[in-house]
Amino acid sequence: MKVRAVVLEGIGDICLRDIEVPGTLEPADNEVRIAIKTVGICGSDVHYYKHGRIGDFVVNEPMVLGHEAAGVVTAVGAKVAQLKVGDRVCMEPGIPDFGSQETLAGHYNLDPSVRFWATPPIHGCLTPEVVHPAALTYKLPDNVSFAEGAMVEPLAIGVYAAAKAKIEPGDVAVVAGAGTIGMMIAFSALAAGCSEVIVSDMAKAKLDLIADRPGIVTVDLNHQKLTDVVAAHTAGRGADVFFEASGSPHAFDNMMDVIRPAGRAVLVGMPQDRAPLDVVALEVKEVTVTGIFRYANVWDRTLALLGSGKIDLKPMISGSYPFDESVAAFERAAQQNPSDVKIQITF
Amino acid sequence: MKVRAVVLEGIGDICLRDIEVPGTLEPADNEVRIAIKTVGICGSDVHYYKHGRIGDFVVNEPMVLGHEAAGVVTAVGAKVAQLKVGDRVCMEPGIPDFGSQETLAGHYNLDPSVRFWATPPIHGCLTPEVVHPAALTYKLPDNVSFAEGAMVEPLAIGVYAAAKAKIEPGDVAVVAGAGTIGMMIAFSALAAGCSEVIVSDMAKAKLDLIADRPGIVTVDLNHQKLTDVVAAHTAGRGADVFFEASGSPHAFDNMMDVIRPAGRAVLVGMPQDRAPLDVVALEVKEVTVTGIFRYANVWDRTLALLGSGKIDLKPMISGSYPFDESVAAFERAAQQNPSDVKIQITF
Amino acid sequence: MKVRAVVLEGIGDICLRDIEVPGTLEPADNEVRIAIKTVGICGSDVHYYKHGRIGDFVVNEPMVLGHEAAGVVTAVGAKVAQLKVGDRVCMEPGIPDFGSQETLAGHYNLDPSVRFWATPPIHGCLTPEVVHPAALTYKLPDNVSFAEGAMVEPLAIGVYAAAKAKIEPGDVAVVAGAGTIGMMIAFSALAAGCSEVIVSDMAKAKLDLIADRPGIVTVDLNHQKLTDVVAAHTAGRGADVFFEASGSPHAFDNMMDVIRPAGRAVLVGMPQDRAPLDVVALEVKEVTVTGIFRYANVWDRTLALLGSGKIDLKPMISGSYPFDESVAAFERAAQQNPSDVKIQITF
Amino acid sequence: MKVRAVVLEGIGDICLRDIEVPGTLEPADNEVRIAIKTVGICGSDVHYYKHGRIGDFVVNEPMVLGHEAAGVVTAVGAKVAQLKVGDRVCMEPGIPDFGSQETLAGHYNLDPSVRFWATPPIHGCLTPEVVHPAALTYKLPDNVSFAEGAMVEPLAIGVYAAAKAKIEPGDVAVVAGAGTIGMMIAFSALAAGCSEVIVSDMAKAKLDLIADRPGIVTVDLNHQKLTDVVAAHTAGRGADVFFEASGSPHAFDNMMDVIRPAGRAVLVGMPQDRAPLDVVALEVKEVTVTGIFRYANVWDRTLALLGSGKIDLKPMISGSYPFDESVAAFERAAQQNPSDVKIQITF
Repeated sequence: MKVRAVVLEGIGDICLRDIEVPGTLEPADNEVRIAIKTVGICGSDVHYYKHGRIGDFVVNEPMVLGHEAAGVVTAVGAKVAQLKVGDRVCMEPGIPDFGSQETLAGHYNLDPSVRFWATPPIHGCLTPEVVHPAALTYKLPDNVSFAEGAMVEPLAIGVYAAAKAKIEPGDVAVVAGAGTIGMMIAFSALAAGCSEVIVSDMAKAKLDLIADRPGIVTVDLNHQKLTDVVAAHTAGRGADVFFEASGSPHAFDNMMDVIRPAGRAVLVGMPQDRAPLDVVALEVKEVTVTGIFRYANVWDRTLALLGSGKIDLKPMISGSYPFDESVAAFERAAQQNPSDVKIQITF
Repeated sequence: MKVRAVVLEGIGDICLRDIEVPGTLEPADNEVRIAIKTVGICGSDVHYYKHGRIGDFVVNEPMVLGHEAAGVVTAVGAKVAQLKVGDRVCMEPGIPDFGSQETLAGHYNLDPSVRFWATPPIHGCLTPEVVHPAALTYKLPDNVSFAEGAMVEPLAIGVYAAAKAKIEPGDVAVVAGAGTIGMMIAFSALAAGCSEVIVSDMAKAKLDLIADRPGIVTVDLNHQKLTDVVAAHTAGRGADVFFEASGSPHAFDNMMDVIRPAGRAVLVGMPQDRAPLDVVALEVKEVTVTGIFRYANVWDRTLALLGSGKIDLKPMISGSYPFDESVAAFERAAQQNPSDVKIQITF
Repeated sequence: MKVRAVVLEGIGDICLRDIEVPGTLEPADNEVRIAIKTVGICGSDVHYYKHGRIGDFVVNEPMVLGHEAAGVVTAVGAKVAQLKVGDRVCMEPGIPDFGSQETLAGHYNLDPSVRFWATPPIHGCLTPEVVHPAALTYKLPDNVSFAEGAMVEPLAIGVYAAAKAKIEPGDVAVVAGAGTIGMMIAFSALAAGCSEVIVSDMAKAKLDLIADRPGIVTVDLNHQKLTDVVAAHTAGRGADVFFEASGSPHAFDNMMDVIRPAGRAVLVGMPQDRAPLDVVALEVKEVTVTGIFRYANVWDRTLALLGSGKIDLKPMISGSYPFDESVAAFERAAQQNPSDVKIQITF
Repeated sequence: MKVRAVVLEGIGDICLRDIEVPGTLEPADNEVRIAIKTVGICGSDVHYYKHGRIGDFVVNEPMVLGHEAAGVVTAVGAKVAQLKVGDRVCMEPGIPDFGSQETLAGHYNLDPSVRFWATPPIHGCLTPEVVHPAALTYKLPDNVSFAEGAMVEPLAIGVYAAAKAKIEPGDVAVVAGAGTIGMMIAFSALAAGCSEVIVSDMAKAKLDLIADRPGIVTVDLNHQKLTDVVAAHTAGRGADVFFEASGSPHAFDNMMDVIRPAGRAVLVGMPQDRAPLDVVALEVKEVTVTGIFRYANVWDRTLALLGSGKIDLKPMISGSYPFDESVAAFERAAQQNPSDVKIQITF
């Protein structure tokens, strides 16, 4: 079918145009159709725009961008019970094989056959209407706007990282990296039980955006040592949890020094190359290190946290452009202004 | 040695007098001496006062009461490194055998030889000075008062219950019972990651004390059914976590109905008799049920949550009496006025 | 379509006849067709035969029996990659809604819409050919016979119970009840790391069937007290794990006495009524109690254990009847001879 | 006091002589005195003998060697209830500060102040009599010899690694490295529930020692690729658990390739330098990596597994020398003959 969409044609070349895409706007039995209201621009969208690839994922054909979306249900399939026309919703963008071994085991995000919006060769959702599995479409609480609903995707990464960290009440966490994902992790870790979250970065402008939030301690790595700050806040024992959200291999330099015995690390940032792990230090402290790939089973709880007011993302929405000005929105996002957290497109 | 103390002589008979107790005020190598500043009156103190026993624990000899205490360090043993004279502290009241199998396994609270303040035949801390293991003495953050420090003991039960519940971010919890411990659990569950905590009780006056806190939903069981409220707040699926804090066997009547598949229950209240467990419902939902006995390894994190401001207990301190008026304090506590949460004694 | 099958007509009335059932023998995209080779008779089949119901599940219409089956793949759907015609397989009998919240969360067995063979109103597999989802069809190792393959269903309950018990290497377990399921749990617990499994029952003939297996200790409740045996084998501390597989409420009488502090219980047997839980004892020991409903995600690992030789079920197959003599097989099973563990039907 | 002991004087210089050591042979209240019967020579003893140091632990003064010991209790302190004179025992060689934060949290092995036999500057146990905390002294089952009792120390590392791996019944594990510790891990992983353990090494002589044990698959890295063997044994999905016991950084090269999605790795070997971790692969598979430092809370369960016969270490004892020939025993051990697993010294 032919749809109007924001299309990445190649490196640095984006346009709003009609494009032929597979599929239909008729929902199957377990699907719903959604009129898109808001789509956020993700760092990965920008990365494809600038570089045409992320690791092994290469944009070889024109591809519709966008995967952070909220909208309104406009049609429901025959077997859909939990949603109805008119429901305000947001959509989890990765569709697994529902019968695969990984899906049945509870981690559908690790199914190798996942089809994820705007990850080549799968088209994204920067288009007026999409059809999506009802199982991956979530109702927005009444007090959560479409703009916030389109923030659920990045926030879900933070909530999932916090869940993987098995935070215990009163934990002190470190987040290395104050980019959008680092912020989402910091907010999630606080909502998930941390008494304090220490966020480090080289970009003071990023740190300043969150420095006033209760429970957040910022560390400007140009002038402070993370090890010193963590020691001061943990009586010298080390943080309970460490989140790597910078993608910098340097975060591994003193990672084990800032984690307490039997502490945990969750790796989220993706460094270009292998990173040097201090195996002996990990063993002597029995630190547990894990990583996350997107998220699974957290969209409903992410919405519950947004709806409860425990996490406030409204100040993180830095700019909003109508669909017709999508190219301008991408140009703004591509500037990577340190005080911009999220640029969105509205319909 | 002879000390001045609040002594329970027998049922309904309490006085402030000199009493001969074992021990000395000279701290051993790993001990500290503390000048008591504030002691809270616990429901168990009142229960011993009124009934002379709690289950198998019987007051056969005059016993010093009190186990919720904060104070100032006045002497430290030769091997104590982490505390110094003048430190403001609170004290964990149960002293295990430090080399026992249960202690080494990480649950020193389950060591059968624990000696716990004001649990017969062990004397409590309602006396001007005590000697205590440094390992069980915790520094108060500067912004935590002695009055709040003396609240750490009951709050630690809530934090420990929340930790045992393995709360995941955004969970919805139910707390059956709005007494002091139910309140502590509710505050802890919210601080530990719940998006919402539904608290039920028959005593509207208790519910009213916490109804305005963000995230708390109260259920007056005289007029509402818990099953209905939980269904409304969980899209009919059931709560993620259930805390039993009422001690009423009726809490078991519909416990499994309000818990979601694969949900968890933590039992804290102590019913007089065995309670009727719906085994088939537990199995069909694969609910996990556990219980707690006091606490272990949570005092430092309880203090971190108090210091961070995530939990505010100041409104829960309902009255304060000088040490000389300790008997009056106990008479007030024994009235069990529903709007009284905590009565304290100061030195 | 019309198939030949073992049909339960009503209470005590079973026959081998042609019956009209829904569906087709053409596998859909993600399905396979299997020629049945062996089907075991389960206690639930016998219970429906004798009583016409199990709890809320009532046989109102003639129903095909059987859910413990192994066979050979005779056709595969268009999208099936992991199986091919001629593969020897066994089949997991419960088909969930693959997109449900419970399925995506990793516990598809708790999905309320599961369709389970021979649980009314769903027909079973005592018929020459069935069509089944490929995702729930598992290849037999070369050294696992069809007869053993048809034992995977009951063994999977044991393996799942052992997995839920989070057995640590060297644990001592108790299994209350030496019926088929109790035996499967005992074998699984040993294979899963226990150093010793203490099995109790009133039926000496059952206990004798397993008394010689290494690691098994039997307790004849007519002459021995379980508490005494457990104390003798655990230096008085109590067992690490307790499995309830008798369905008797009396198993709850001293359950907490035979479990160590911080131990675990897994409930598998289904008592008729609520059982009296000793809440205070559970709390004082911080015992964790959970239950299981069938199984999830364990069929492949159950087959791995059978294939490795760690679990030997060949002696548990007590009798085998050809399909034409299915009624005789059911009559034998209905006698519930204590030395019969499993009666099977072959094609 | 002056004792006769095997003393490391400096690099390559060992002798049996009288040496002045701190302490007394009178047990304190919570201690016992043990007459040593058997001591195994550990790779670390040999390493100190050859190199005078292990990492930051440097032998600056003459030091008594030995930490793998079994013996007979010859005196008990006043408060010791669980042991009596004449008991056959083995001893856990690391003594923590029993009141430290790490000890109370359940991981006394991570207490920075642990005093461990034969780790400089602490003397070891290659001397006729030692005094030790009763809490760290374990009775041998009647069917466990002193020689096997002296193997509990290395086996406990394997059991602890297996416990940390959270093995589920039927798991397939990989052990990289077939040295003594690799063997102990392989045996433990099988006893702990694995259906199969794949052990890789360059030293065929080591692999041959265990190749015939049921459940063990050996991979000679000179002729086979670990990735191929793992793929063949796991239908291409990868192993559930990976144990690193080689200390070689090359084990990290394809570690993530041989682990399944959501699998686990436990690091035991200590590479000289940092190892290159494939962070993106860890994240995409959500692999969890942890490490162990010695052991905690597993000596009793290690003995239970030895006593049950699930683990047989008798073939691993390659040679035995009387105390008077201790120097010869060390010379034999220092040859590191690939077919020698454990050399012991008897009293």
